[in-house]
Amino acid sequence: MTGLPAESAPAAGTALETGASFHEMWAELLPIGRNPDSGGYRRYAWTGADADCRAWFRAQATARGLSYELDRNGNQWAWLGDPAAGDAVVTGSHLDSVPDGGAFDGPLGVVSSFAALDELAARGARPNRPLAVVNFGDEEGARFGLACVGSRLAAGQLTTAAAHRLRDAEGISLPQAMERAGHDPEAIGPDPERLARIGAFVELHVEQGRALDLSGDPVGIASAIWPHGRWRFDFHGEANHAGTTRLEDRHDPMLTYANTVLAARKKARLAGALATFGKVSVEPNGVNAIPSLVRGWLDSRAADQETLDAVVAEIERAAQERGARDGVRVSVARESFTPVVEFGHALRDRLSALLGGAPVLPTGAGHDAGILSAAVPTAMLFVRNPTGVSHSPAETAREDDCLAGVTALADVLEGLACH
Amino acid sequence: MTGLPAESAPAAGTALETGASFHEMWAELLPIGRNPDSGGYRRYAWTGADADCRAWFRAQATARGLSYELDRNGNQWAWLGDPAAGDAVVTGSHLDSVPDGGAFDGPLGVVSSFAALDELAARGARPNRPLAVVNFGDEEGARFGLACVGSRLAAGQLTTAAAHRLRDAEGISLPQAMERAGHDPEAIGPDPERLARIGAFVELHVEQGRALDLSGDPVGIASAIWPHGRWRFDFHGEANHAGTTRLEDRHDPMLTYANTVLAARKKARLAGALATFGKVSVEPNGVNAIPSLVRGWLDSRAADQETLDAVVAEIERAAQERGARDGVRVSVARESFTPVVEFGHALRDRLSALLGGAPVLPTGAGHDAGILSAAVPTAMLFVRNPTGVSHSPAETAREDDCLAGVTALADVLEGLACH
Repeated sequence: MTGLPAESAPAAGTALETGASFHEMWAELLPIGRNPDSGGYRRYAWTGADADCRAWFRAQATARGLSYELDRNGNQWAWLGDPAAGDAVVTGSHLDSVPDGGAFDGPLGVVSSFAALDELAARGARPNRPLAVVNFGDEEGARFGLACVGSRLAAGQLTTAAAHRLRDAEGISLPQAMERAGHDPEAIGPDPERLARIGAFVELHVEQGRALDLSGDPVGIASAIWPHGRWRFDFHGEANHAGTTRLEDRHDPMLTYANTVLAARKKARLAGALATFGKVSVEPNGVNAIPSLVRGWLDSRAADQETLDAVVAEIERAAQERGARDGVRVSVARESFTPVVEFGHALRDRLSALLGGAPVLPTGAGHDAGILSAAVPTAMLFVRNPTGVSHSPAETAREDDCLAGVTALADVLEGLACH
Repeated sequence: MTGLPAESAPAAGTALETGASFHEMWAELLPIGRNPDSGGYRRYAWTGADADCRAWFRAQATARGLSYELDRNGNQWAWLGDPAAGDAVVTGSHLDSVPDGGAFDGPLGVVSSFAALDELAARGARPNRPLAVVNFGDEEGARFGLACVGSRLAAGQLTTAAAHRLRDAEGISLPQAMERAGHDPEAIGPDPERLARIGAFVELHVEQGRALDLSGDPVGIASAIWPHGRWRFDFHGEANHAGTTRLEDRHDPMLTYANTVLAARKKARLAGALATFGKVSVEPNGVNAIPSLVRGWLDSRAADQETLDAVVAEIERAAQERGARDGVRVSVARESFTPVVEFGHALRDRLSALLGGAPVLPTGAGHDAGILSAAVPTAMLFVRNPTGVSHSPAETAREDDCLAGVTALADVLEGLACH
């Protein structure tokens, strides 16, 4: 089979109903929020593109006769059976994107969830527990700078007061953005009753690395999410004229920043961790001006917290040492941190039994599943990513792997809810 | 005497008339376009702050009974005597600023020019050649990205067509900006008749390095302006997820950029040149995204073109070598270049004779004087900068040095125009 392109509608459906329903949904979602210049997606929370994605979700629910709910925090739910019965099996993911993100990160999980329900119907499987598909709002945090806002609010991991302080680049607060999008922001906050209905949550997601590609498996099961965080490094130098200031008289923070970028890579490599400077801002950012301030954001992750703490401490030490040589003052602030998430072994082992042979692997990426795992039994499935590329228009997945993901998810839902 | 602060009105005038007139002008100019947050100046071409500076200039001309002219390219002239007589001695500088620039870069030359005319009057000196003070428009190029627009246009070093293509960050063209500021842009272009009136141009400027501070002299004479240029380095990598992409699978252009920043410093140090990366832009510039593109601008200068060419070639070679290791494609484009300006020796030697003992020194900074030197005999005076800091709110100069500059400029004008 051919690859499933992000750039165009997929080939016509296969003979399988599952494939046909998957293809149709995929084709409908594909144009929404796509930036024609980059080919990437700009589906940011509470924007027009987000509203189009939400309308698509609601239409999918309605078309299948599922009962539709929009919860107080802006998460969408499509229910098969009575939610009040409790002990529900819920699957789903998110539809929003990072700036110029790929087509699969998030939407693959939501589309696969509806397709898996279609597959269950085609199999004639009869659920004895409520089933639901969920679309968590604002997973990527592209607009307000905090990831997993919808699930964090529901799980009480983001307070209402802190949510009110979130602002986008134009100064619009999260409640204002919700209100402009037609969602009443008054009721945002913890939603324990809704979470208490859930007996198991399973999120399917495209893999964002190459582990499955390297092991040769179409589908895998998550073991854990690495602890990860963001640290802001401020390098304070002295603005001066680039054309007249002697090198020995400079306090150039760009040098300290550059050295820290290279040190971060080296420390991460030695520790088997990840460390990335992907965002930087410079003042005054003039071609002929030595900067007064360079601000760089470090994203770092590792298999365990001890390693992560050690790597970040070493990067900070390298920055301070170089700063002392450059006459540049370095300050470091942790902007966010998420501890390790070890998915519950009972549910994970159940999935392993249902999907005999699927490998179990960790990931460095945060997910709504990681947030929910503190409140309900949670598991994740990953679908092979042949290049490992994600958060990029070049993100891709093979069609047969995506359909294998749907089948695996249907097997899991059937195993959990129909026997 | 105390230092002359940029942040507040200077102390009351000295007994000298020169000092009194200098102080009064300085105090009037000081609040215009000052950003209260940074303490620096934002006097960009054809903005409201620029209009206020221009109104100040015109008022100074009027108050002294000088005839006022605004030329086709937006440069302001204040004439003592008949311009049409020719062989004029012209002095002046500029009033605009870089983003958050200092109080002295530019205005010190204009204020000192008027104060020097006052000093000549106080001395009872009688000019036998026309004298003029000029304020060249848009010297810093902060708004439209090209320096010395007013003098370049007049000297034919910027074509009218190229000037029409200049745009600011909001897409407003130079002619549109002129028109909105009440200046007819129709006639912009070469102005050889006006330049032909000038027998000598002398620009006084605060030094933007520490040469005079190190030699212990309040005033110096320029020998040359170093050749200098701007090169844009584009580092093309591959966008990817910072939390999941293995280090060995990355094509991270931030690493190549960082290594190039450090290489530039080293190559410049070894060659006795200057090289600075002060401006950078990143795509997508997300905390958890390996960038697809890092764009850095190199400013480099050296005493001679051979050295400059060699330094830039070595920086580019270092970038290409590291890019090959990182899987990052590097392309380099020269955005601007100004060859060495060697000020005419006849006028320079005349100034040396008039200011016995003043040291002669080169500078790395471009000036309107450098543009004009191709068309008319041109010289420059520098006033000591005790810290060398410029293009920064911290730029400063001592009050006695500023007044020594006025006296030196008056001596030069008297020597050139009154004997």
